[in-house]
Amino acid sequence: MSATATGWLLTAVAETSSEGSTDHASERLANEPVQPIAPYQSEHPEKVELGKKLFFEPRLSRSGFISCNSCHNLSRGGTDNLPTSIGHNWQEGPINSPTVLNAGLHMAQFWDGRAATLQEQAAGPIDNPMEMAYTHTLAIEVLRSIPAYVDMFEAVYATRDIGIDHVTDAIAEFEETLVTPNSRFDQWLRGDDSAITADELAGYETFKSIGCVACHYGEALGGKDFHRMGLVHEYLTENPSQGRFEATGEERDRFSFKVPSLRNVERTYPYFHDGAVWTLAEATEIMAYLQLGRELPQADIDNMVAFMRTLTGEQPQITLPQLPPSTENTPQPVPFERE
Amino acid sequence: MSATATGWLLTAVAETSSEGSTDHASERLANEPVQPIAPYQSEHPEKVELGKKLFFEPRLSRSGFISCNSCHNLSRGGTDNLPTSIGHNWQEGPINSPTVLNAGLHMAQFWDGRAATLQEQAAGPIDNPMEMAYTHTLAIEVLRSIPAYVDMFEAVYATRDIGIDHVTDAIAEFEETLVTPNSRFDQWLRGDDSAITADELAGYETFKSIGCVACHYGEALGGKDFHRMGLVHEYLTENPSQGRFEATGEERDRFSFKVPSLRNVERTYPYFHDGAVWTLAEATEIMAYLQLGRELPQADIDNMVAFMRTLTGEQPQITLPQLPPSTENTPQPVPFERE
Repeated sequence: MSATATGWLLTAVAETSSEGSTDHASERLANEPVQPIAPYQSEHPEKVELGKKLFFEPRLSRSGFISCNSCHNLSRGGTDNLPTSIGHNWQEGPINSPTVLNAGLHMAQFWDGRAATLQEQAAGPIDNPMEMAYTHTLAIEVLRSIPAYVDMFEAVYATRDIGIDHVTDAIAEFEETLVTPNSRFDQWLRGDDSAITADELAGYETFKSIGCVACHYGEALGGKDFHRMGLVHEYLTENPSQGRFEATGEERDRFSFKVPSLRNVERTYPYFHDGAVWTLAEATEIMAYLQLGRELPQADIDNMVAFMRTLTGEQPQITLPQLPPSTENTPQPVPFERE
Repeated sequence: MSATATGWLLTAVAETSSEGSTDHASERLANEPVQPIAPYQSEHPEKVELGKKLFFEPRLSRSGFISCNSCHNLSRGGTDNLPTSIGHNWQEGPINSPTVLNAGLHMAQFWDGRAATLQEQAAGPIDNPMEMAYTHTLAIEVLRSIPAYVDMFEAVYATRDIGIDHVTDAIAEFEETLVTPNSRFDQWLRGDDSAITADELAGYETFKSIGCVACHYGEALGGKDFHRMGLVHEYLTENPSQGRFEATGEERDRFSFKVPSLRNVERTYPYFHDGAVWTLAEATEIMAYLQLGRELPQADIDNMVAFMRTLTGEQPQITLPQLPPSTENTPQPVPFERE
């Protein structure tokens, strides 16, 4: 956690004295394996605003139709709520689109962790022929042809010579702001005992005692490790992904995936890297069986689902950006291929 | 113009005294064939908010991917800036998607005017197999399965029995709010002589004197009549649309289209019902030739384009809605067809 976030946390804890003592809150924060999410205050608001425009910019795609927000829809928990995504020319994506919310809290990006940073991730979909199907060169040419964009890049990066690294840096900075603080569970972590119910608390206790928390811990309840999907029992899927093996080539990484965050998990269905499961109850039952070898009573599942619903935080409030119009020099979109 | 809008106009005129006398402004307003756009104050803010959610709701489509905003993108002048739109399964649409901005000022909807109202229009794309490719029955089933939606509909329509007419009524009320007042040209109309330049004013004078204004008049500079595309010279296009003929079956309506609004026209490229022309200069030259038999000097075209750029008003400021999550009873999207 950054120094700023820690500072915010201590202030927040100090303010909980009406609900519980500061000691009570400090003790809980020190002992629980989950930490509250801190709001993200960017020191570069102009960069964030530029990044927001680019996040919603369909002209970064060959068709002029697909933007980052198409598959990481900020109206829908930062996902498309589809098993796998729709790409250029309605191609079927290979894997479930992970949420962009709180992604900055993860150690790496993509299910296989092949991008170390948000910036590195942002470059991927633009020129992936299955996704936005463009080239970095053409995407840059689009932006350079639009004076309003050139001015914005100059204000942020002090150059009119826009490059792909500027584009991905701005998108990444916008994405850093997409955190979801102040969930009911975070209120509880900060000492407010009344923020969650007895059933929800019981669900959290089960979540810890049976071992879910071994992978789903930290601010994001996930995003900190890779683990094999199907640890005790094999996971049967038609999805061909080999997981982290595809990034490292190491045999031990086969079927290993980045642990997904459980933040806002009630909004990020369907679940797993193949998007095969639609309900939290089913996902919970399956994970307990596959990873921990447990067959849980329904009451435990119900409570754990209730607990997971307390992880929905404040969704980022986004004012829809206004994108500057193309000029006669802007490369035209190619929505349909002609022979 | 509604009584409310007239009232707003008179107030606005009274407030122009710093830039010009009220008499000056009143005279201009009375004599010009274009009227300023009034802000739209809905008397049903809860309905507007519900309609906004539905406008951004991909679950009204079979794929769960396409919403109203996909083709009427409120980041991009209410259009997709494509010649024709991308529909379900990447089907190529038959005609250019008109902007939703100021659409409530039009006498009818669609290029052929086949929908009398915004509400009637809104029902079309949902079950059009080329567009959202869903059914009204399934769209309603989705909404009924989500308690948060049922509560919102009940708050607005005093019933939990959601019907398609509620859905389209709410979307239409949201769309009514999508007006773009206070363009520089409107400031000039209300008496502020300094709001537009001499070249822009000269462009407006040419626009009137050569006859563009015969069709492009009123608040929206269009949207009030149907006219044949290619009045003096034939318009050559590969687009198969027969225009209003398709709605009426009357021979005289063949190739007749609703006059598009020129409001925000610098943002609503490409132009014409086939979306064949990308620049305002080219569109202006072509229209003068086709409809009026004029071959204009470049200086006149430049000034008219400069005038048209003054028609860009304040774009609606939209806070992205948060869509409530699906439940286990929600019909699942079908992004890809399986045999």
